[in-house]
Amino acid sequence: MSQRQQHEQHFNTIATRARAIMEQENLDAIVASTCENFYYLSGHPSTFMYTLRMSEVALAVMFRDPSRKTVIIMNDFEAAGVSSELTHCELRTYPTWVDVDDPLGLRGGKYEGKRPMAHQAVEMFGVLQATLAEFGVEKGRIGLEIDAMRFAAVQALRQVLQHAELLEANGIFNALRVIKTPWEIDQLRKACAYAEAGITHAIQGIREGSTAEDIVHAFRLGLMGQVMGSVPRFHMISVGAEFAPAHIFDTRPAVQGDVIKFDVGIDVNGYGSDIARTFVLGAPSDEVKRIYGALRAGHDNLLERIGPDMPMQQAFHEAMSVIRSSGLPNYNRGHLGHSAGLSLAAEEAPFIGPSEGTLFRPGMVVCLETPYYGYGIGAIMIEDMVLITENGCERLNTLSRDLISL
Amino acid sequence: MSQRQQHEQHFNTIATRARAIMEQENLDAIVASTCENFYYLSGHPSTFMYTLRMSEVALAVMFRDPSRKTVIIMNDFEAAGVSSELTHCELRTYPTWVDVDDPLGLRGGKYEGKRPMAHQAVEMFGVLQATLAEFGVEKGRIGLEIDAMRFAAVQALRQVLQHAELLEANGIFNALRVIKTPWEIDQLRKACAYAEAGITHAIQGIREGSTAEDIVHAFRLGLMGQVMGSVPRFHMISVGAEFAPAHIFDTRPAVQGDVIKFDVGIDVNGYGSDIARTFVLGAPSDEVKRIYGALRAGHDNLLERIGPDMPMQQAFHEAMSVIRSSGLPNYNRGHLGHSAGLSLAAEEAPFIGPSEGTLFRPGMVVCLETPYYGYGIGAIMIEDMVLITENGCERLNTLSRDLISL
Repeated sequence: MSQRQQHEQHFNTIATRARAIMEQENLDAIVASTCENFYYLSGHPSTFMYTLRMSEVALAVMFRDPSRKTVIIMNDFEAAGVSSELTHCELRTYPTWVDVDDPLGLRGGKYEGKRPMAHQAVEMFGVLQATLAEFGVEKGRIGLEIDAMRFAAVQALRQVLQHAELLEANGIFNALRVIKTPWEIDQLRKACAYAEAGITHAIQGIREGSTAEDIVHAFRLGLMGQVMGSVPRFHMISVGAEFAPAHIFDTRPAVQGDVIKFDVGIDVNGYGSDIARTFVLGAPSDEVKRIYGALRAGHDNLLERIGPDMPMQQAFHEAMSVIRSSGLPNYNRGHLGHSAGLSLAAEEAPFIGPSEGTLFRPGMVVCLETPYYGYGIGAIMIEDMVLITENGCERLNTLSRDLISL
Repeated sequence: MSQRQQHEQHFNTIATRARAIMEQENLDAIVASTCENFYYLSGHPSTFMYTLRMSEVALAVMFRDPSRKTVIIMNDFEAAGVSSELTHCELRTYPTWVDVDDPLGLRGGKYEGKRPMAHQAVEMFGVLQATLAEFGVEKGRIGLEIDAMRFAAVQALRQVLQHAELLEANGIFNALRVIKTPWEIDQLRKACAYAEAGITHAIQGIREGSTAEDIVHAFRLGLMGQVMGSVPRFHMISVGAEFAPAHIFDTRPAVQGDVIKFDVGIDVNGYGSDIARTFVLGAPSDEVKRIYGALRAGHDNLLERIGPDMPMQQAFHEAMSVIRSSGLPNYNRGHLGHSAGLSLAAEEAPFIGPSEGTLFRPGMVVCLETPYYGYGIGAIMIEDMVLITENGCERLNTLSRDLISL
């Protein structure tokens, strides 16, 4: 199957699953307004959302009625970039502050109305209202991402959609996203490979005196040398005892015995890896060996044990017990892994945590992690991204899980 | 004055201004919960907010009482990275899913309580409630970023802060941020210089067949070669007729006569430039020359005319009229510029728009822009970042405003 066909199949699969949920929940439509879910339903990565970090500036509306295409509601400037390959969608626009001219008459002339100074949520929701009315569901049951919307947007929404019954759709999007399509798994395999290529490049240059800033720089250059256009989502790289996540990287020079932790993620077509490895400059201290050994034992337990039909909470409790009995009796943690893929925050539900009843199922892609952060020690961490298979799980990344001396 | 002293002065200036507004509005405290405003009050760039894009995961609370330090409320994992140089703040923490160990007893032992599976806004707001109570203002008037908060966070907030009077603080933060301190102006000067260095590097490699993806790659490499650790916030680079903002860059090869537009911004210590220039491969068409000439005339008008005490709407109407009478009679646009600095969306209020009564004042840093997007033509744009001075304005960037053939 070609990439293009696989991508079309991906959208068909999502639509079939979403409509089954809509039947079950008696919903007439679901509406995506966050960056990730807008992309998930439409296939269009909005620059206003991804790059400029705006929320509720575009909507993707999927109807229970399978004869309806998914409607993208977007400002007319961004809409000009929506690919004609997204044949499962149709576009409706609203005016924003950016004008688009048509001097050659290619689109039947330009919009001559007044342009607002900035984004107007009310105008966008007005197009939603008109679309629901046109399709006969303006008084229907509509699932929206209400909890995730900014408060002002919810007020604008309620002002415009006065007759519909508005329901929270967060659980529906989570349920849809947790099982990956073959196209999604392909993107995540690449994202893992690129992350590991970045790590492999960066560790070659590490020596006494290297700083977190140096290593981040080498990681980014290594990545750019490997593959055009791929971007890191995050590179939480720590050297020595300074384990806290940093936005501006540390310039303290590495000394012998320092642990060096990579917790990194690369974006490929909107899907992000999230993997971690720890190295040590020279020989590790006994303390570091003890901690690493305990984490590794717990991590190996996760890799060996998880598979279809095991509840996530069981995986959590088993691995926590292994770590605690392997040298870290006070090890504590809210979860030992999470679903992943679209979320720009790297982690998404469900979590491998103490009260998560969700069962592992084939097609899930989850990150397994056993992180340790200690004052005076630093960050020590192993994280793998795995695909749940019919029999167990398959690692999507390949680097050794040993503590390697540089 | 040293950088460190200038930075301390910056926080003193903000606090003085903020307390004057709090007096005036009879507020007891203001609370920042968005990425930019949390950084603005605290000086700490939160990785959870900047990189992982979470909202309402940390709070910065400034009190009207000048004897109180600004209180940072943050999870204990991120809090470990707050610089001791931020002497205007004190830290309070709440537990999150990440455990932090203290095997050497450096901090008096580790937290042994239960860790949640994911972020709990209620716990964070609980620390806010306790802090307000301790300072005697739990029944006071508190300014918060309510409109910008996610709906679920507002619900958690109201559940916890039942006795305080909660008011919208968006206008207060805008009023504070619009006048820059000398330290902020320094960061923006650097951010402009780095953006121009990236453009200068990238244009050297442009030839027939170059794609937007190639040029973005060269821009990023050029930037990384110039300066360690600086990161692009955005690089909206377009080639030929494909003007729409793209998250995944275009791979169509440039041909003679194509316009090539850079609209880019670089981050320096949380402050972002936003500048644009347009080039042409070979000779420009008459149509492109006509459009460029009109935009240039309007842009020059803005640069010449704006200065202290002119209302922003006046600058807008004058420049629009120049553009319309210089060859683009149907030119339309919601604004011709905006304040800038912290906003990750590049543009922030006030806008140089048709109904904006705000006066230009010394110390403002604003972007002046005259963008044009046309089907079959592409993007043509000039954007400068300027500092309003006592007499007019000073450009923070230096590249020629001519349409240059490559």
